[in-house]
Amino acid sequence: MSRNALKLVTIGGGSSYTPELIEGFIKRQDELPIKEIWLVDIPAGEEKLNIVGRMAQRMVKKAGLDWTVHLTLDRREALKDADFVSTQFRVGLLNARIKDERIPASYGMIGQETNGAGGIFKAFRTIPVILDIVKDMKELCPNAWLVNFTNPSGMITEAISTYGQWDRVIGLCNVPVNAMIDEPPLIGKTTEQLTYKFAGIDHFHWHKVWDETGKNVTMDILDKIEADEGDGGLPKNIFDVPFYRAQLDNIQMIPCGYHRYYYREEEMLDHAIEEYNGVGTRAQQVKRLEHELFELYKDPNLAVKPPQLAERGGAHYSDAACEAIASLHADKKTHMVVSTVNHGAIPDLPEDHVVEVSAQIGAAGAIPMAFGALAPAERGWLQLMKNMELVICEAGVTGNYGLALQAFTMNPLVRSGHTAKRILDELLIAHQDYLPQFADTIAKLKAAGVTVKDPIARDLDKEPATV
Amino acid sequence: MSRNALKLVTIGGGSSYTPELIEGFIKRQDELPIKEIWLVDIPAGEEKLNIVGRMAQRMVKKAGLDWTVHLTLDRREALKDADFVSTQFRVGLLNARIKDERIPASYGMIGQETNGAGGIFKAFRTIPVILDIVKDMKELCPNAWLVNFTNPSGMITEAISTYGQWDRVIGLCNVPVNAMIDEPPLIGKTTEQLTYKFAGIDHFHWHKVWDETGKNVTMDILDKIEADEGDGGLPKNIFDVPFYRAQLDNIQMIPCGYHRYYYREEEMLDHAIEEYNGVGTRAQQVKRLEHELFELYKDPNLAVKPPQLAERGGAHYSDAACEAIASLHADKKTHMVVSTVNHGAIPDLPEDHVVEVSAQIGAAGAIPMAFGALAPAERGWLQLMKNMELVICEAGVTGNYGLALQAFTMNPLVRSGHTAKRILDELLIAHQDYLPQFADTIAKLKAAGVTVKDPIARDLDKEPATV
Amino acid sequence: MSRNALKLVTIGGGSSYTPELIEGFIKRQDELPIKEIWLVDIPAGEEKLNIVGRMAQRMVKKAGLDWTVHLTLDRREALKDADFVSTQFRVGLLNARIKDERIPASYGMIGQETNGAGGIFKAFRTIPVILDIVKDMKELCPNAWLVNFTNPSGMITEAISTYGQWDRVIGLCNVPVNAMIDEPPLIGKTTEQLTYKFAGIDHFHWHKVWDETGKNVTMDILDKIEADEGDGGLPKNIFDVPFYRAQLDNIQMIPCGYHRYYYREEEMLDHAIEEYNGVGTRAQQVKRLEHELFELYKDPNLAVKPPQLAERGGAHYSDAACEAIASLHADKKTHMVVSTVNHGAIPDLPEDHVVEVSAQIGAAGAIPMAFGALAPAERGWLQLMKNMELVICEAGVTGNYGLALQAFTMNPLVRSGHTAKRILDELLIAHQDYLPQFADTIAKLKAAGVTVKDPIARDLDKEPATV
Amino acid sequence: MSRNALKLVTIGGGSSYTPELIEGFIKRQDELPIKEIWLVDIPAGEEKLNIVGRMAQRMVKKAGLDWTVHLTLDRREALKDADFVSTQFRVGLLNARIKDERIPASYGMIGQETNGAGGIFKAFRTIPVILDIVKDMKELCPNAWLVNFTNPSGMITEAISTYGQWDRVIGLCNVPVNAMIDEPPLIGKTTEQLTYKFAGIDHFHWHKVWDETGKNVTMDILDKIEADEGDGGLPKNIFDVPFYRAQLDNIQMIPCGYHRYYYREEEMLDHAIEEYNGVGTRAQQVKRLEHELFELYKDPNLAVKPPQLAERGGAHYSDAACEAIASLHADKKTHMVVSTVNHGAIPDLPEDHVVEVSAQIGAAGAIPMAFGALAPAERGWLQLMKNMELVICEAGVTGNYGLALQAFTMNPLVRSGHTAKRILDELLIAHQDYLPQFADTIAKLKAAGVTVKDPIARDLDKEPATV
Repeated sequence: MSRNALKLVTIGGGSSYTPELIEGFIKRQDELPIKEIWLVDIPAGEEKLNIVGRMAQRMVKKAGLDWTVHLTLDRREALKDADFVSTQFRVGLLNARIKDERIPASYGMIGQETNGAGGIFKAFRTIPVILDIVKDMKELCPNAWLVNFTNPSGMITEAISTYGQWDRVIGLCNVPVNAMIDEPPLIGKTTEQLTYKFAGIDHFHWHKVWDETGKNVTMDILDKIEADEGDGGLPKNIFDVPFYRAQLDNIQMIPCGYHRYYYREEEMLDHAIEEYNGVGTRAQQVKRLEHELFELYKDPNLAVKPPQLAERGGAHYSDAACEAIASLHADKKTHMVVSTVNHGAIPDLPEDHVVEVSAQIGAAGAIPMAFGALAPAERGWLQLMKNMELVICEAGVTGNYGLALQAFTMNPLVRSGHTAKRILDELLIAHQDYLPQFADTIAKLKAAGVTVKDPIARDLDKEPATV
Repeated sequence: MSRNALKLVTIGGGSSYTPELIEGFIKRQDELPIKEIWLVDIPAGEEKLNIVGRMAQRMVKKAGLDWTVHLTLDRREALKDADFVSTQFRVGLLNARIKDERIPASYGMIGQETNGAGGIFKAFRTIPVILDIVKDMKELCPNAWLVNFTNPSGMITEAISTYGQWDRVIGLCNVPVNAMIDEPPLIGKTTEQLTYKFAGIDHFHWHKVWDETGKNVTMDILDKIEADEGDGGLPKNIFDVPFYRAQLDNIQMIPCGYHRYYYREEEMLDHAIEEYNGVGTRAQQVKRLEHELFELYKDPNLAVKPPQLAERGGAHYSDAACEAIASLHADKKTHMVVSTVNHGAIPDLPEDHVVEVSAQIGAAGAIPMAFGALAPAERGWLQLMKNMELVICEAGVTGNYGLALQAFTMNPLVRSGHTAKRILDELLIAHQDYLPQFADTIAKLKAAGVTVKDPIARDLDKEPATV
Repeated sequence: MSRNALKLVTIGGGSSYTPELIEGFIKRQDELPIKEIWLVDIPAGEEKLNIVGRMAQRMVKKAGLDWTVHLTLDRREALKDADFVSTQFRVGLLNARIKDERIPASYGMIGQETNGAGGIFKAFRTIPVILDIVKDMKELCPNAWLVNFTNPSGMITEAISTYGQWDRVIGLCNVPVNAMIDEPPLIGKTTEQLTYKFAGIDHFHWHKVWDETGKNVTMDILDKIEADEGDGGLPKNIFDVPFYRAQLDNIQMIPCGYHRYYYREEEMLDHAIEEYNGVGTRAQQVKRLEHELFELYKDPNLAVKPPQLAERGGAHYSDAACEAIASLHADKKTHMVVSTVNHGAIPDLPEDHVVEVSAQIGAAGAIPMAFGALAPAERGWLQLMKNMELVICEAGVTGNYGLALQAFTMNPLVRSGHTAKRILDELLIAHQDYLPQFADTIAKLKAAGVTVKDPIARDLDKEPATV
Repeated sequence: MSRNALKLVTIGGGSSYTPELIEGFIKRQDELPIKEIWLVDIPAGEEKLNIVGRMAQRMVKKAGLDWTVHLTLDRREALKDADFVSTQFRVGLLNARIKDERIPASYGMIGQETNGAGGIFKAFRTIPVILDIVKDMKELCPNAWLVNFTNPSGMITEAISTYGQWDRVIGLCNVPVNAMIDEPPLIGKTTEQLTYKFAGIDHFHWHKVWDETGKNVTMDILDKIEADEGDGGLPKNIFDVPFYRAQLDNIQMIPCGYHRYYYREEEMLDHAIEEYNGVGTRAQQVKRLEHELFELYKDPNLAVKPPQLAERGGAHYSDAACEAIASLHADKKTHMVVSTVNHGAIPDLPEDHVVEVSAQIGAAGAIPMAFGALAPAERGWLQLMKNMELVICEAGVTGNYGLALQAFTMNPLVRSGHTAKRILDELLIAHQDYLPQFADTIAKLKAAGVTVKDPIARDLDKEPATV
């Protein structure tokens, strides 16, 4: 590693989150001796790359730094001799997410973009691309670290580890970050005063908290969240239905915001259908927000991250990536919650697969903190969900239709049966351009006349995919 | 054990299945040197006990046997020095099952009597009673075997083993029996020619089959079932929607009939709601059938099991109990599929909890056949379901409301949220007479004015509970 | 499989055990529709093959059977379209075993041919050969079963399964067979009246026994063995020092005879050294015995297995192989104790590696009986021993010297340190002709002047290796 | 916890290590708001307690601190409302250790005081006492932390956790501390620049090291140790025979110093016998050293820890205890290597038993770092050793003679057989005053005339046990 002249590469550089990433690097300039930042995107994202890339260049310049910010469509050139590669791309752009959400909703099911039916397809689209990136990295920058925050972050990290056979990877999510920012003030503490222990998988984890006197303050925090003095870092994209306290009293841990999909499925479904029939699904809302953000970014006078980005839902995601990179490079031995190989930290899950846990991040990589065995309820849930991830990854690699159906059947947000199968089939058709592994199946479905029912999802490809 | 003068005790002796049980004993008279059969019931079941008990006496007499058939309401007298105790009782009789099925259905959910919301409550009602029986057995017949076929058979066996700390127990189910009777002819074989390997938990298992040349014929059997040449032993109480072949091709095992609830949930729900709104739920149908059966049993000339019993849904259940008793007593080393402690047979589940697997049954008890690790999809499902069982058992022992809510949340047939909680609350109210462990919670719910919405379920207790 | 014209192949056909094997086949003529038996050996064993092969032909003829008995040095011709292949060869013949035993003994250590230093080298010599046979079988008879009784039987079966990736294999040992023959009469029972449960690995297992009334009679058998009314089937080659009863009372299982090496190491070592300095090691005794046997076999009038073979130490080994073949072919669903993939039967060991357990043997192969978790003392011992097997197998495949040293260090019969290393080095030199995988290491040792100290072991190769 | 007026209690306060402990507290005065230090001992240790206790008082006074240092024989008074309790006592004083070492050596075996036969007896003597202390703590200071550094530290911590059911405990050892002090300079680094990952159990662990650039420097450190540029923190009490490099190249980790007993057993035994026949065993040497130390401590002008203490073998032990206490109290989130409940950190060992691993120490206790699965050789060794610990603990609690024999048989430093049994019996006799749990067995052995052969060990009790 060129320790004093770091080359950082960001794939999906045209993302609206890039300014947060650049801000994060600037904030850590003392820890990160950066020489070059390469923002990479695909032709379809070139316009956005140019807008946000120039904004990035202005930010660096304004900070008085001599870093070079390269904008490129040539991924291999960017990867050559890279020290850190971060991935934040979205295969199929927001239009693909709109399909992920609307097609299930058109049949009365949740099409959430991470663990729901939509999440399954986001994984299916992303896995071939990320494995291709890993293949390039093995050739072009074998000592680089890959910091992934492309969703579904846990499954993508699993695919990188298991199918890519690449162990220099850390998967990130902003959900734990937000919790650790928003919870401490609720009980009059700072983050530094608390000890956090997280365990689970991406978007499906729980945590316990102790204060600086060794007191377990988990339930105190829940008391405050319940009393509506805070939302415990609930992401903007999650409808805020409360958990049942009797259930939490049994769990004795704080569930992540996404647990609402599993512990209050009915309300989350009602809300999703309401949005589908009304203001549009989250992706449609985000698309509008993105449009506004890019309009802002075009302003040649803007050289700091605009406050509107915080509305985007992924706040602190990019900052977490910067912190991970700084911790790895400067051997900071920071506590972060990351997707990494289990190694026994959660004894109820396989030792050699990816989990999301508290870990110490330093030059030696991520060292997970052992959490210990879970109680039966949490254990059962987590074993289901992790195995579903494994099934999704295998289906995403092999294009096996039976396995895809198995994944749908396992997903607690999908009610199995002919409607579920129909949703699976429509999503295959809708995303055909990004699912080479399923080509044979898609051909059969098309021959059988399967088409997308939801008119908005169906007609999306007719308009230019600018976002 | 008094090896030449066996004392057999059946708790729930007034059941309509008793004639099959008696028939089973008669059939095995050479293996079972019976002296006394004690049919035990509770006061509410006295009338039925007398009807079916006298029928049992006629059957024994007709068979020319000198066995004494005792009818009693005194369980402790019956248990004293017993050699084998079989349990086939239903706490709350069929009216309780009607509530289990109708209350969830009144809110659009499945109230199935084994794994669904209804099954959870059947466990809650049964666990205190079975643990009381085990307590008596420790005192009165510590060397006896307990052969349980009270449903949910797996969970009850788990409670006996884990909370009763009683290891001389075998849990039975007719589902594997039926499969092993109905499948072989589909491929032109006898049961003896085939090797069966089952793995899972009660009402949630899969199996593989080999023929006498060592050929794996699992998929051949599925071909025949699919071609509608048989139903693979599907119990009468399960709606016959087919599995998706693409999914089975991935599983490479034959799922049990109850898997329809998980692999085709939508259709099973639709069917349940249709019955709820039409002919009545399964329990209502069974109640009518039971009435007819008892009318038949009253006939003083009837001394053989009537063919109508086969319609009842639990065919071969009692015969399996007889076979288990004969195998234990005569050291037959038979292959049976039973609920017993795992001991590693399914390495994906805890070593010391109950599973339903192929086992060798002989004087040394049940010795499970090691099945080996499952593929991720089946592993995830099974780990969820087994842990749900553990949660239900603990809630059933402790009366912890939060745990009961956790069990509902884990149950794939229950959509979590306020409707699920409402169903839980109504079921607690509806079954209050049989849930001493939940007394405090029930008092609070009543104080809060919770009542049962479904009029039939609500008004059931007003009529005499004769069945 | 040609079901009515079986082709059986025995590799190492020139073994003195072959008459027992032939006798076993003759005994099972009704279950085994044999057409051809192929006895295969290597050029160095041609003379013995001819002697014993002709004896085999006489035995078949005398039994009035039309089987063809082929004698050949062409392994590939023999394997072509075989139905069953049994392996009973000894790489390097008895001279190699003499080295295995004498070289350690010359330094005051145990050179036992299965688990001791000698056993490690027997594995090292055998693994390349057996993997070569598996390679041939994949090509020439992919549906055949491999029944291995070449020692160390457990490790060889492990190598076949893990490195050969061949799952149609069963590993055999006569130790459990002998126990099940000799123990029942001690308590006045027949084998059929008892239920046996064995768990462990080859030459390192324990068992429990129940009688036909379900009584655990394990300690009753031990009482009888202790009272010197029997030796519990102790093989002829094991010195008969008693176990400590206080230890057995804690174990509550019957250890196999080879446990003497671990539970009474001192006495076994003293005995080994005494033999080394006196009558010669076991291999030297066996060599004389073999010579006598072959003299007998030469007698053209001899057409039945001579009683002297029972002195050989491996009594019932070949008969067990015949029984395994008959059970596989005729789907007998027999209880046998075999080396097969664990599949959870011993939850304390890896699920996917070979153990030696009670299993049901039928057309579907070996289905292990789940034994359940062991107590800490037995668990710790067994985990050490199984992991040592894995280390030996890996060293045997890779020729890694460090791993070989690790294996020596783990072996409880080897005291680590410079003497152990010297023994390792001398054994490498002594067996150089059969250890191609260690060629580089051996070259270095030779260059460094390492030679074999024990004169008998050193000079063995100077005489013709006829046995 | 009285957070601003800490009450610290040290049981075994009369130990020669106490000055290091006091020095450690003084060094951390800013982190530890101490009010009182209670040094507790038993009547037999009163003289030493007074000598070292007054020295401790002088040290505190010289440091200008207002802490009260209490000297007492009343353990319960001391424990009342304690915040931290550290244990450094030796049941039977050094005379007991002399017996532990000499009795095995008199028969040619290793009597090492931690994992050897001596260690087994040190555990047997200590377990009843420590469980009594835990019982008092539950009553008198239920919120206190117990920091144990009484050897065998891992087994004692196991007993506290499993049999004492006390989870506020951390077990300490100086071996990892020394390694982390002595190794970094060998490769030109500071401890802070390196990342250490330890895994194993007390006195049987390995570690890996990375530098601040993420490079794995484990083998670089071994290169330097091998080149004799350092001893990698080898304790003074361990004879310095080198490991075999070929073995280490296979392990790819640094073994702890005590691994010499297992990887170079022969040389360690030779050395032990040489000392036994010459200068006396380590305990005899230590006894002389202790005598000198106490003479020094008597000097009323001495108020700092004398350099001679470093010769004692346990250097940094007490300082580690101080660091653990400071980390717990001041929530320092320090990396330390401690004995604590596994929680999956070493997936090859039971989740709920004690291991010695890298952990983060803070107010929430010890959070182990997940190490991941070991290779078969290390796994097998470790599983044996941990299970031996469990057997020793159970024997130490129950006084079961068969289990004690099992422990001896499992111990790799004990050659099983009649000599081992004789050593066991003599040790039981020799330590009879401290083994109430074995009273029945000891009575039988005495009745049978068992006496101690080694004259020094036998006659020790005749002289006053001053140390």
